[in-house]
Amino acid sequence: MTPLDLPRPYLLFLGDADDTTFLKTGLGLRDWAPGQCVAEYKCPGAGATLGLPAMTPREAHAAGARAMLLSAASIGGAIPASWTACLIEALEAGLDIVSGAHHRLANNPQVKARAEALGRQLIDVRTPPADLPVATGRKRSGKRLLTVGTDCALGKKYTALALADAFRARGLAADFRATGQTGIMIAGAGIPIDSVIADFVAGAAELLSPDAAPDHWDVIEGQGSIFHPSYAGVSLGLLHGSQPDVIVLCHAYGRRRIVGLPDYPLPAIGEAVDLTLRLARLTNPDARCGGVSLNTAGLSAEAAAKVIAECADRWGMPVADPMRQGAALDALVDSCID
Amino acid sequence: MTPLDLPRPYLLFLGDADDTTFLKTGLGLRDWAPGQCVAEYKCPGAGATLGLPAMTPREAHAAGARAMLLSAASIGGAIPASWTACLIEALEAGLDIVSGAHHRLANNPQVKARAEALGRQLIDVRTPPADLPVATGRKRSGKRLLTVGTDCALGKKYTALALADAFRARGLAADFRATGQTGIMIAGAGIPIDSVIADFVAGAAELLSPDAAPDHWDVIEGQGSIFHPSYAGVSLGLLHGSQPDVIVLCHAYGRRRIVGLPDYPLPAIGEAVDLTLRLARLTNPDARCGGVSLNTAGLSAEAAAKVIAECADRWGMPVADPMRQGAALDALVDSCID
Repeated sequence: MTPLDLPRPYLLFLGDADDTTFLKTGLGLRDWAPGQCVAEYKCPGAGATLGLPAMTPREAHAAGARAMLLSAASIGGAIPASWTACLIEALEAGLDIVSGAHHRLANNPQVKARAEALGRQLIDVRTPPADLPVATGRKRSGKRLLTVGTDCALGKKYTALALADAFRARGLAADFRATGQTGIMIAGAGIPIDSVIADFVAGAAELLSPDAAPDHWDVIEGQGSIFHPSYAGVSLGLLHGSQPDVIVLCHAYGRRRIVGLPDYPLPAIGEAVDLTLRLARLTNPDARCGGVSLNTAGLSAEAAAKVIAECADRWGMPVADPMRQGAALDALVDSCID
Repeated sequence: MTPLDLPRPYLLFLGDADDTTFLKTGLGLRDWAPGQCVAEYKCPGAGATLGLPAMTPREAHAAGARAMLLSAASIGGAIPASWTACLIEALEAGLDIVSGAHHRLANNPQVKARAEALGRQLIDVRTPPADLPVATGRKRSGKRLLTVGTDCALGKKYTALALADAFRARGLAADFRATGQTGIMIAGAGIPIDSVIADFVAGAAELLSPDAAPDHWDVIEGQGSIFHPSYAGVSLGLLHGSQPDVIVLCHAYGRRRIVGLPDYPLPAIGEAVDLTLRLARLTNPDARCGGVSLNTAGLSAEAAAKVIAECADRWGMPVADPMRQGAALDALVDSCID
């Protein structure tokens, strides 16, 4: 009954990708866990690169790699048969294999048989640990921050990673706690919260950020949104189990409607903060909002700074894009750790 | 991608119970689906009875039964080895087997082998259907009522059953929609919502109450409580996917704290209604509260009537115990179908 714990560092496997379009996982790993990325490897003839040293599985193992991580998205979530030879080569070189795909690695009978014969692990990051507990609601020691969102896919993971980095830069003890497959690969540990049986979501969140020293921060990756008609239950279970002292609301500049559900407008920022805190206070009566993480990707530095200043003024709280260093991010961090 | 659909009517199997303490499932079936209970059957020497005709599986099959339903709770959720001979006898008599236990029927290798050889079904009601959809949030036709609670285990299932009965007694088209194992056995169909993978809870709820005629009512069994620190996410996914036009808040008279979690007080009734409607309106902006279902089990008829009248006055809305017929229940039904 422990969160996933991945063998690291990694050899990043790029499959047969010809450019980085399908390498979001690999890009995230390279940018957020560079110390865990020993090298890259790909199918013969594939054109893409992450700019890492090219190594064979055997060379990567000699250089310290412990697992080959599938870093390319695959159409429909299945692992292409054209990858089989490379996967077996990695197993024979002494590497475990880590995958975030929907289909399980063990569904490939050749890969499964070779892993069993060699005693290697096939780790599907989307598969939650067995025997998760039901939440108890017991207050835990230590401090917690949870990123929440007005929608899916607008920066909750990267906000949590950036804030954990910023906390450590201030000399604070802080851990990023991962709840989705890319986050788990970056952190090397975590629980894929949206794959958990519904009754155990809050319990999984409790397990993910255990009792800690009073001044230690767990910075927890949020999932979904309590305003998303498909996933709000996941978000609420994660919110209750996380018992955050501080929430940071993540929003994408200019987004007006839930992605893929045009009948659903995004909530106003004030409404989102108010309802999130009302719900959060069930398990942590002292929950408060640290501010807004505003995704300004696509704007110039000048335009982003102007938008951020306007939003901070309009919403009456700190606003920053954690992908951009500067005074706004400093103010958001100040507000969170206050 | 359809809800469970059970073979009926049933032969109720009482195991080796000596009294009705462990027969809650059987009592619920007998009381709420009497037309589906052909007879009862038990291990040799067992003392309990539900007052149904005693039949062997062969006699029950001849009398029309299509499945033997395990009606006794088993310690730890496992199916006792002492039941094996009776289960095989049922399979050989032509009956499928239906179980709500935590452990799967197919975990018993003898029972599994015999069922496979005879082409009979072993149906675990706690196992949700595969390939559930993600919720779309699309508004469906027809009317829906969802029972919600201030806590678990206070009457959400029986309130939904009683209201569906009362709606039909008024000449309305109404279906009870089951979300837990006993409810599914009573209805003969449903989805065990708390066993669904978190991402698909709202989608399962959408599947459970599909488009219907404009004046048709689905009366949906609630689960958990948005005020329960362990299960609120399940309740919220069910609330969003159900898109209720009307909620009925279920409460147990005199209960002050969440069962098993004494640090968690129950919400005030006004707060519970307000927060539930605020959340419900994401997927149904017209959601309203029909009133309160107050569990007054243990009170005399006179004491219950007094308490119900006092509560209706205090809370400013219709209050009734749906297990007790009378003017209060009529007023609650009036309010719901208004």
